Amino acid sequence: MKTDIEIAQEATLKPIGDIAKDLDLTEADWEPYGHTKAKLSNDLLHKLDNKPDGKIVLVTSINPTAAGEGKSTVTVGLGQALEKLGQKALIALREPSLGPVMGLKGGAAGGGYAQVLPMEDINLHFTGDLHAITTANNALSAIIDNHIHRGNELNIDPRRVEWKRVMDMNDRALRQIVVGLGGPLRGVPREDGFNITVASEIMAILCLATSLDNLKERLANIVIGFTYDERPVTVKDLNIEGALSLLLKDAIKPNLVQTTENTPAIIHGGPFANIAHGCNSVMATKTAAKLGDYAVTEAGFGADLGAEKFLDIKSRAGDINPSAVVIVATVRALKMHGGVHRDHLKEENIQALEAGMDNLKKHMETIDSFGLPFVVAINQFPTDTKAETDFVKSWCESHGADVALTDVYAHGGVGGIELAEKVMAIAGPAEGKPNYVYDTNEKLETKIRKIAQNVYGALDIELSPQAKKQLAYYEQEGWGNLPVCMAKTQYSLSDDPALLGRPENFTITIRELRPSIGAGFIVVLTGNMMTMPGLPEKPAALNMDVDKDGKIKGLF
Amino acid sequence: MKTDIEIAQEATLKPIGDIAKDLDLTEADWEPYGHTKAKLSNDLLHKLDNKPDGKIVLVTSINPTAAGEGKSTVTVGLGQALEKLGQKALIALREPSLGPVMGLKGGAAGGGYAQVLPMEDINLHFTGDLHAITTANNALSAIIDNHIHRGNELNIDPRRVEWKRVMDMNDRALRQIVVGLGGPLRGVPREDGFNITVASEIMAILCLATSLDNLKERLANIVIGFTYDERPVTVKDLNIEGALSLLLKDAIKPNLVQTTENTPAIIHGGPFANIAHGCNSVMATKTAAKLGDYAVTEAGFGADLGAEKFLDIKSRAGDINPSAVVIVATVRALKMHGGVHRDHLKEENIQALEAGMDNLKKHMETIDSFGLPFVVAINQFPTDTKAETDFVKSWCESHGADVALTDVYAHGGVGGIELAEKVMAIAGPAEGKPNYVYDTNEKLETKIRKIAQNVYGALDIELSPQAKKQLAYYEQEGWGNLPVCMAKTQYSLSDDPALLGRPENFTITIRELRPSIGAGFIVVLTGNMMTMPGLPEKPAALNMDVDKDGKIKGLF
Repeated sequence: MKTDIEIAQEATLKPIGDIAKDLDLTEADWEPYGHTKAKLSNDLLHKLDNKPDGKIVLVTSINPTAAGEGKSTVTVGLGQALEKLGQKALIALREPSLGPVMGLKGGAAGGGYAQVLPMEDINLHFTGDLHAITTANNALSAIIDNHIHRGNELNIDPRRVEWKRVMDMNDRALRQIVVGLGGPLRGVPREDGFNITVASEIMAILCLATSLDNLKERLANIVIGFTYDERPVTVKDLNIEGALSLLLKDAIKPNLVQTTENTPAIIHGGPFANIAHGCNSVMATKTAAKLGDYAVTEAGFGADLGAEKFLDIKSRAGDINPSAVVIVATVRALKMHGGVHRDHLKEENIQALEAGMDNLKKHMETIDSFGLPFVVAINQFPTDTKAETDFVKSWCESHGADVALTDVYAHGGVGGIELAEKVMAIAGPAEGKPNYVYDTNEKLETKIRKIAQNVYGALDIELSPQAKKQLAYYEQEGWGNLPVCMAKTQYSLSDDPALLGRPENFTITIRELRPSIGAGFIVVLTGNMMTMPGLPEKPAALNMDVDKDGKIKGLF
Repeated sequence: MKTDIEIAQEATLKPIGDIAKDLDLTEADWEPYGHTKAKLSNDLLHKLDNKPDGKIVLVTSINPTAAGEGKSTVTVGLGQALEKLGQKALIALREPSLGPVMGLKGGAAGGGYAQVLPMEDINLHFTGDLHAITTANNALSAIIDNHIHRGNELNIDPRRVEWKRVMDMNDRALRQIVVGLGGPLRGVPREDGFNITVASEIMAILCLATSLDNLKERLANIVIGFTYDERPVTVKDLNIEGALSLLLKDAIKPNLVQTTENTPAIIHGGPFANIAHGCNSVMATKTAAKLGDYAVTEAGFGADLGAEKFLDIKSRAGDINPSAVVIVATVRALKMHGGVHRDHLKEENIQALEAGMDNLKKHMETIDSFGLPFVVAINQFPTDTKAETDFVKSWCESHGADVALTDVYAHGGVGGIELAEKVMAIAGPAEGKPNYVYDTNEKLETKIRKIAQNVYGALDIELSPQAKKQLAYYEQEGWGNLPVCMAKTQYSLSDDPALLGRPENFTITIRELRPSIGAGFIVVLTGNMMTMPGLPEKPAALNMDVDKDGKIKGLF
């Protein structure tokens, strides 16, 4: 089969104006960025206010493994399949981060015949949203250090500046640094570090904001650190929310592109799925729902992290209510959950597959507890045997679950027809709110416990001394009624990445909390979360090139 | 009078497609970025190869002072005036850097009725060129540190990594830092620092490259540091020139915009005018010359730095040969050169003015020695008295120099008619090469001495022990035949910023050299050059804001 980039370069893209026209957009509703990308106007959502919402389909998955699940690919393919069935469908995805593109992956915009295009641009600078977020984040850092340097009127404790600088790069050497060295001309020395841009609270804010005004309000609420007497210091105290909003005035506009089959796609925002909520922007998803009969969107990692946060955080913030859920699984990943080593995934192994179904079962129960109908999508790989896919199908059917084989990577929308039909059959009306895991008015500790017990299947939570202290501080500070954003390994339902399948009799250790008051949630850290990736031994960048005409290679 | 931003927001912009059409560009020659910005295609210059060049007018100035000269404003206004005289004129300017915009200036794209628009975008993220340069620069840094971390096959000495990270921000706390702290998972500790993006060698490379291929070749030649046995290490050794070129594939395309009077402007690239050559890109200037009867462009700082480097570096690299030069002066700045304190600039002072003419005279002699005809443009300020402007006019005339009063800030092109007429009268044919200050084949030391003596008026140069050692190393390394790029204070003809007017009997101390082998020049440092600015007590950012409809304020 052809590589992703070969397929992408051979695809016939429509001018983005034609895509916009098909969506009944006027010239004032969008701005071109090149011939195949556009930004949608700030007014558009307001203008569409009275239009009824289409149905939102949330694509999630079992716990990811090294074998890969292809969640983005299924999301794109499902949108394409719905269009083939005569529906107006839009796809709403996250923007890839350049760091991992240069590092490991080489590209992240679906795959095969279910890609969003132009993949070269989407994987590189796209319309500059991530660069704008980087700039806003680092402008705030510069303002903080300048404030400390010039008298520190706010009494900021340099040891308690929680706001980190960011870069859209995999760069381990920036994880822990000391800035401000070299004497009085070079600022006040303090420990600092860079996160990757998608881990910036500003990315989470952009993705949860419902308007430019709401963005500014959220930015003003960011807590950048604490004073010497341990009082929170906000962006509002520094009076810089206006400039930060100015830097983000275009980044907040959703981006319109298309898939390999010319299905419209809105790609916008991409926060980390552990220390943030891992979903594309509220504005993008809402716009997709307003413009289509169906908006197909995804959430990061497995249903324990992505779907839970989509529903408990994003749904609440944006009044975005899925009508149906797709749980993506692969035979390969299920076999890994059943105990097969990565090197033996190509061998048929029904016994391991059966053991691995436990992981899927837990996620089915979780989606069920949210009160949402779902279809299991088995994303086929060439190495799957018929006996294996038959087994998964009949297992699902015997557990009362809708299930569909999909092969959108190799066949595009045609490979997702069965899935699309089953999604259409179960998707409820657009208005119903999910059964949230918790009420926001509950205590933070209660909310954390409910997620650990009901979504992860833990016996209980265990709080570190630091977490206990922080819980008390946050409740007292008035932050207790915010949703919680769990940062946990994506590989396991527990907080131990080695425990695949459906672990039992475990507790979740809560190490530390962090206030993301601008984003509007409290981050709950279980274990060490890496917020700045490193480059591998042989970075993908070493294989990248561009010829004299601008044709690229090495993004695959 | 209205503020710059008020004038900008009231201006009627043409759709960028209309501007392109007026330049006889086809749809394939450009890509839209919004409705009023475009990128010109990679093929365009090649396509225009056989078209004769229009005349290039280089705008330079006396040594800048705190009083301001308005060189960019005169450049824009001159282009507008030429159009009013029935000429097809294009303006070729540098892109502003966000750091100073957030810090001191609030905006940098001409002023008054001689601005390039949309000024909000040009001053913020524009078409993302600077972000792409930042990314490419920092991708190289990440690759270097990853290489050292993973076994250091090339034997790079971490103490001799000269390649710095960059950020498009005024952030003094990043001037001197330590990276790689925190143990084996966080890389190899070493001293590092951030420059502002426009100080990146990649910016200089982008501005001197003649094609995407030439860009890649120059990137490959970058020397990032030295091995433990003091051999140079290049980007080619790291095999990363392909990925860096890929990251710059769109940034290399010149940007088309328009002025307040709809005169086409190509804004592209903006390297530092001290540690780099301070001119917009070769490709932009060449394109402007191909598309117009006149291309009006500027070089950074005064003629001692900007014009010398334009002619000795950029002209050579791009075969770009000005037909005429404009030397901008203001009564205010001339009075400062004549000894008046900043606080007394509003008071008429013919005596000080007369004393200050010495500075202008030196720059006139310099342009004359390049064999180029020039006009002195007196950029009027409301506080100038008639006696003062009359004095400057008659002084110029009595010294055989063409001179014109301009008032383009207040009146747009109409205020520059006299200047435009005089420029048209003197501009020679487009083919002639200037008399360079030096032959590239001369020794580095000779080249430096010739600039110091002939352009600055120094008695001689004095080499630090380090500079002597480096000169020997560079000559031996085969770098001796490159042009030199002087890094000197812009405020004085000497290397002492306090010596205004026309200092005499001084020597220039050469402190240090740096190889910019990718850019294709040797940087010669006199004194300490700050390559990362800091924020002032009250950063301009604190006054910036954007309302709910995206309308901005605080860029002035």
